[in-house]
Amino acid sequence: MTVHLIAGGAGFIGVNLAAALLDRGDEVLVLDDLSRGSIANMAALRGRNGFGFIEADCSDPDTLDVALGVNRFDQVWHMAANSDIPAGVADYRVDLRQTFMTTVALLDVMKRRGRTRIHFASSSAIYGDHGERLIHEDIGPLQPISNYGAMKLASEAQLRAAKEAWLEEVSVFRFPNVIGVPATHGVILDFIRKLVATPDRLDVLGNGTQQKAYLHVSDLVAGMLHIADRREPYAVYNIGPTDDGVTVRFIAETVRDQFRPAAAIQFGEGNRGWVGDVPKFAYSVERLLATGWQPRLGSREAVLKAVAEIIAQETR
Amino acid sequence: MTVHLIAGGAGFIGVNLAAALLDRGDEVLVLDDLSRGSIANMAALRGRNGFGFIEADCSDPDTLDVALGVNRFDQVWHMAANSDIPAGVADYRVDLRQTFMTTVALLDVMKRRGRTRIHFASSSAIYGDHGERLIHEDIGPLQPISNYGAMKLASEAQLRAAKEAWLEEVSVFRFPNVIGVPATHGVILDFIRKLVATPDRLDVLGNGTQQKAYLHVSDLVAGMLHIADRREPYAVYNIGPTDDGVTVRFIAETVRDQFRPAAAIQFGEGNRGWVGDVPKFAYSVERLLATGWQPRLGSREAVLKAVAEIIAQETR
Repeated sequence: MTVHLIAGGAGFIGVNLAAALLDRGDEVLVLDDLSRGSIANMAALRGRNGFGFIEADCSDPDTLDVALGVNRFDQVWHMAANSDIPAGVADYRVDLRQTFMTTVALLDVMKRRGRTRIHFASSSAIYGDHGERLIHEDIGPLQPISNYGAMKLASEAQLRAAKEAWLEEVSVFRFPNVIGVPATHGVILDFIRKLVATPDRLDVLGNGTQQKAYLHVSDLVAGMLHIADRREPYAVYNIGPTDDGVTVRFIAETVRDQFRPAAAIQFGEGNRGWVGDVPKFAYSVERLLATGWQPRLGSREAVLKAVAEIIAQETR
Repeated sequence: MTVHLIAGGAGFIGVNLAAALLDRGDEVLVLDDLSRGSIANMAALRGRNGFGFIEADCSDPDTLDVALGVNRFDQVWHMAANSDIPAGVADYRVDLRQTFMTTVALLDVMKRRGRTRIHFASSSAIYGDHGERLIHEDIGPLQPISNYGAMKLASEAQLRAAKEAWLEEVSVFRFPNVIGVPATHGVILDFIRKLVATPDRLDVLGNGTQQKAYLHVSDLVAGMLHIADRREPYAVYNIGPTDDGVTVRFIAETVRDQFRPAAAIQFGEGNRGWVGDVPKFAYSVERLLATGWQPRLGSREAVLKAVAEIIAQETR
């Protein structure tokens, strides 16, 4: 019986991954400090056969080692990170600890326990702004413009060096915005909450032309499992839809139409919402497509589905 | 009067940089924890007008802030790093603290004090093995194979994100092996010390065909100053000779010829000396040449000069 350790497993992506692994008949041990993840997120996992949870700070090797105790695990999924990019821009220590030191600490306990297989949730934020250039996995230079992206890149670098020395299998998943439930942050949730507060008006940061690719969490999890099952020694894959994304305007209008059809949308100026937020993004998933897999949903379908799911979550 | 803060300024490159800055009439404040740097290295700097030294651990923001006290500085040269790559491969904490956390801590004290100009000694180790491909600054993917290279890349990532948020001028120097005096480590010093121990025999790791580019420290310092003087907002430059390097065999023979002409050289097998050591390396300095500057010495001349200097140092 394979036991999967999921660091950050009480977060949005972690709980979806945990459910999929349990569906396969594997066992799952979630590690989470509950700073961003929550017990509530794990509601559908509690009581399932083969599911376990340990509350632990994953950013310190010794704390993590003690917290793991005698629990056995075979492979690690590293989903722990700061998910609030502006918070990480305001204070670099947030991403240093939550996004990078978690990688360091997980590698430390893996090495101590002789575990050599890790899957890492990296990010398209490692690339930075490449204008209209198509962003494939081997592009350079890498110029992350947020501390979040910087610490994801730092994590990849540490993994790569550990692969040279002692790790046997590493998967690195770089993905853009992922949407679905349980939603804890992101533009869709922001818009819905704004419309709860002021049902007749939706104020949007920027002029709405900012365009991004969106991946539904169900596709992300399926893609990660597909890549992990290939057992490549060092797999680096962009995971995303095959389209080039939808605009903030489309998302605002979708939320308005599904939730408060009479509300007026007010756009701001410029095409950036905040420091660290990259405008247009041409993201290549050719490497992934070449393996014979592709996401079921495009950006547009992912947004339509996630908006319905998050409205249901917020009005439950 | 410009005051230059040199972190790691008691190390090999730091003391050469400090001397050059004092030669220009600027002031220099060296920060060093003396773990790898030393008072002896600073012998030629002591007593010079405008030179100051503070012993401090540069890897912790609060320690660094207290140690700096009321000392004023205008710009920072970040030369602090673990210089023992195999030690960093054996224990990741060495490069985590000495190579990466020094960057974090320096940025922290700069931000607190409103200083926005930093020059960073990165490394060709961030690139990893690209086979026969020419390594220019924008190449991808970046796959460092040592913890040293990983933590230099992590540092670059952190600098890039800070540039987006608040830094005004960043220079990133990526250089290969740098040689000269005061020598504290490296292949030339190793060979000389082996010949001191066993004057009739020099055992070489690997078959001697491993080829690398070597830059003399005098050229490195001149190149860094040249780039810094251009005041680009975000300057990333390979600094190296225009040739593609010399072999370990050439270095061994040069040391033997200059130091113990009667000694027998014994080569090992394979073309790698240790984990994290990249074999052949085609390093592009086109971007640097395009600015109208080039090193005075090629790899061959740099080795000849450094061997003579290090023999003098070791037999003083």
